[in-house]
Amino acid sequence: MIEAKTTLALTMGDPNGIGLEVLLKALSELNLKPPIEVVVIGNAEMVKAHAVHFSLPVSFKIHDIPSENPVLDWGMTNAVAGTLSMKAVETAIDWCIAGKADAMVTAPISKEAIGLAGYAIPGHTEFIAARIGVKDLTMMLVCDDLRVGLVTTHLPVSKVTENIHEEALLDKIRIIHHSLMNDFGILSPKIAVLGLNPHAGDGGMIGLEEIDIIRPALAIAREKGFFVSEPYPSDGFFATRRWKQYDAVLAMYHDQGLIPFKTIAFERGVNFTAGLPIIRTSPDHGTAFGIAGKGIANPESMKDAILLALDLVRKRKKYNS
Amino acid sequence: MIEAKTTLALTMGDPNGIGLEVLLKALSELNLKPPIEVVVIGNAEMVKAHAVHFSLPVSFKIHDIPSENPVLDWGMTNAVAGTLSMKAVETAIDWCIAGKADAMVTAPISKEAIGLAGYAIPGHTEFIAARIGVKDLTMMLVCDDLRVGLVTTHLPVSKVTENIHEEALLDKIRIIHHSLMNDFGILSPKIAVLGLNPHAGDGGMIGLEEIDIIRPALAIAREKGFFVSEPYPSDGFFATRRWKQYDAVLAMYHDQGLIPFKTIAFERGVNFTAGLPIIRTSPDHGTAFGIAGKGIANPESMKDAILLALDLVRKRKKYNS
Repeated sequence: MIEAKTTLALTMGDPNGIGLEVLLKALSELNLKPPIEVVVIGNAEMVKAHAVHFSLPVSFKIHDIPSENPVLDWGMTNAVAGTLSMKAVETAIDWCIAGKADAMVTAPISKEAIGLAGYAIPGHTEFIAARIGVKDLTMMLVCDDLRVGLVTTHLPVSKVTENIHEEALLDKIRIIHHSLMNDFGILSPKIAVLGLNPHAGDGGMIGLEEIDIIRPALAIAREKGFFVSEPYPSDGFFATRRWKQYDAVLAMYHDQGLIPFKTIAFERGVNFTAGLPIIRTSPDHGTAFGIAGKGIANPESMKDAILLALDLVRKRKKYNS
Repeated sequence: MIEAKTTLALTMGDPNGIGLEVLLKALSELNLKPPIEVVVIGNAEMVKAHAVHFSLPVSFKIHDIPSENPVLDWGMTNAVAGTLSMKAVETAIDWCIAGKADAMVTAPISKEAIGLAGYAIPGHTEFIAARIGVKDLTMMLVCDDLRVGLVTTHLPVSKVTENIHEEALLDKIRIIHHSLMNDFGILSPKIAVLGLNPHAGDGGMIGLEEIDIIRPALAIAREKGFFVSEPYPSDGFFATRRWKQYDAVLAMYHDQGLIPFKTIAFERGVNFTAGLPIIRTSPDHGTAFGIAGKGIANPESMKDAILLALDLVRKRKKYNS
């Protein structure tokens, strides 16, 4: 599958969450061999402490992020953990930009811990975008042939409608279209678009945004050569498995995309950041502090994130050649 | 199962949609025997024309709704179809109130056709509520052990947040609680409540409604003796199949409840109106004009609606005795 040497940079995530547990389990189960090289970027002491605690092997390189005071404190948030998790992310980004790594896979971080460490960012995606200097990117959820992109992400429901406008729709369609070609090797991408309101507005009876905003934006997208559907009623769209006829689904807001995605993907599913010059994936779960240290965390999503990253490296190399 | 005589009133729905097709298919497949008596309420000419067209038997009574000009016009909306479908609903309601029927199952109607016929109502539920004079009821979706109730229903996303308030939450919790006891025979109902915003607001970082409105309302509900969860992040709730631990799920808005319900129920799933003195179920799909007359409509949801109605009759009789 992977012919040339491929280096994956895996960030440790918050050491008090389940990140290193699923990372160690995933690497142990996947048992990746050269020419794939795996480097876990994180505090070496923490990584080894996890390996001992969970009786899992360390069959990969560690790029140490040193710390004077690394303390394992399952389920708790502290500034040291926040600093370590973000230093790992910074290093991985720099490696990807410099070509030292072909892709990065990030274990979950804690918003609270990185806040204590002085990072005022909502999450990985925004941090990576800022460090690279990219403005237009899209969070995309991937599970086999189901790919879901979002127009709006971490907004209260009360703020969603005002953020659905022509520019946002066209930006996301463009980014997803190019990612489907560039990253997923799809020559003529077909994008399904969901309506904002119940029954996609039911002809204007349940909201006018489909008529006033979404349909006109989609007409413009078609003029620009993108293949996009009319806005689908989102419940019926998933009920009839209509997504199987498209290469990606564009949802208008977080739960409209994430609820069906996670219902279908179950314990699997990968978060991919489309629109970046580098390749970054992550599992679609958080630190899960409530079960940290117990050995019961499911590594399927992390395994999928690693495998998708490898697949994207291969597809992008093919597309660029 | 059903010991005493049970009479089911089935309304024909819009004759130009798939209603009579799925009704005839469902009754043919279920092959219900006495003491269950099935009466289809609708225009006899239309019912028989469907039976001939689809080569399906008429092994049930028909209560005729006469019409001077019944014309079968697949996929089209007209006032005659609207009038016939609503007259059937009116008759079924009256039968249930008078005790002439034990439950009613409604085939889908067309909002446009009933509008042409002069009915200014959004759908069955509101019409039944008005005719019976009941104010507090709740649309509930049922598929096996998954039961989903909604706080708000056919509202644009922009209007959802302002309609999430203490009174609405307590009303719905009370109605669902009593329906679970009365209709479903559950002695100590457990209700899972979803958050409104992504990540259930993430501690106030993505909206304040969970903190300011939902949690206080749930505290009051608990004081009143109802078992309700804290607000769950809705994507994770369905990802982890958490609903299996509850008797019902209360969603804040249409697509938050309907998307996961239909994704899980697939072609099955029943719409049940909780809070009524009578029993009314329906399939969870619409008229599907696009495939009307083609013989390809799936009757599973209608079969489930009929079986659930019979089950509810049995449970309510048991509960009341």
